[in-house]
Amino acid sequence: MIPPDHGDNATDQVDRLIVLLAKLPGMGRRSARRAALKLLRDPAGLMLPLADAMRSTAEAVTPCRVCGNLDTRNPCRICTDPNRDQEMVCVVEGVADLWALERARVHRGLYHVLGGVLSALSGVGPEDLAVDALLSRVAGGGIHEVILALPATVDGATTAHYLHDRLRSSNVSVTRLAQGVPMGGALDVMDDGTLAAALKARRPA
Amino acid sequence: MIPPDHGDNATDQVDRLIVLLAKLPGMGRRSARRAALKLLRDPAGLMLPLADAMRSTAEAVTPCRVCGNLDTRNPCRICTDPNRDQEMVCVVEGVADLWALERARVHRGLYHVLGGVLSALSGVGPEDLAVDALLSRVAGGGIHEVILALPATVDGATTAHYLHDRLRSSNVSVTRLAQGVPMGGALDVMDDGTLAAALKARRPA
Repeated sequence: MIPPDHGDNATDQVDRLIVLLAKLPGMGRRSARRAALKLLRDPAGLMLPLADAMRSTAEAVTPCRVCGNLDTRNPCRICTDPNRDQEMVCVVEGVADLWALERARVHRGLYHVLGGVLSALSGVGPEDLAVDALLSRVAGGGIHEVILALPATVDGATTAHYLHDRLRSSNVSVTRLAQGVPMGGALDVMDDGTLAAALKARRPA
Repeated sequence: MIPPDHGDNATDQVDRLIVLLAKLPGMGRRSARRAALKLLRDPAGLMLPLADAMRSTAEAVTPCRVCGNLDTRNPCRICTDPNRDQEMVCVVEGVADLWALERARVHRGLYHVLGGVLSALSGVGPEDLAVDALLSRVAGGGIHEVILALPATVDGATTAHYLHDRLRSSNVSVTRLAQGVPMGGALDVMDDGTLAAALKARRPA
């Protein structure tokens, strides 16, 4: 008999809660137990509000049918915001990247969430990503620039290259994020690839 | 205006979910955002089951009126288990410690959850802990040994000392966990206190 992980006395319910909590990113079995205990200690102040927040969010939030952003509105409030530049579309791997760019408040155009990057190793092809949706959006007209804000990895670069190819026939300018030394980055801890990219892309001081 | 932490577009609902997730132990703002995204990506498979598990657990689980353990039964299934030694009560700081001892399957008696340890710094006195409940249990008779399984800290030792004093007039034997080098512990990384305690409590080989 495999002993239950938090003791004989624990109920099936607590067990199930711990198993589900352990599925959250950054949570292991041990931290899930600590989280379950904290929740159990404050049912009215934390566990029930969190349960309600999850239920109502799950019911209200959907992917935007235009860009793939997650929102209670569909199309989302970025796509429908008249103050945003409708002619610029920033292509990102996932919603987390969209949130990061929004936090930085540096892009005032629209977005397009790919839902991943091409990966030969993981078997991710163009049909698994929102590539056709992007091409349709561009073919629909009104977009002047597509900014490829994809991760600076091999798969990200492959995806950027592929999208650039597919967009070549259309009449939009395709750009990529600059690569170089990050803000506050000390040179002696940078990897060779970053140093090479930064040197190659050097600009007048 | 303070910019919202995950972008203009984020809904109040997602915001609230992130704030609540960030209250879990080990979760920061950043990991709460990642957790929220993972939940949003799988509403039916993860977010709704977790919401339901929290709601049903919050409604079903209460502290045992005898020992303070958390269970759907009250008195809990340890207190009502006829196979357990009713004459031994192990005093622990919290339910997490009770779970740890149950996982180790080393104690076949009952428990008493104090709900903390005495702390002059944090202003925790005997009236904040389940001390009177413990004394009543012991005064009720039938208990031969009280094992103080409190943390090996200054506050834990103070609490053990205090409980030993209070239990002196009763007719039970009061014991404490042994202190020493933990299993697999290399001597050169042990702190001085542990080495001193282990040497002092040395036993015939």
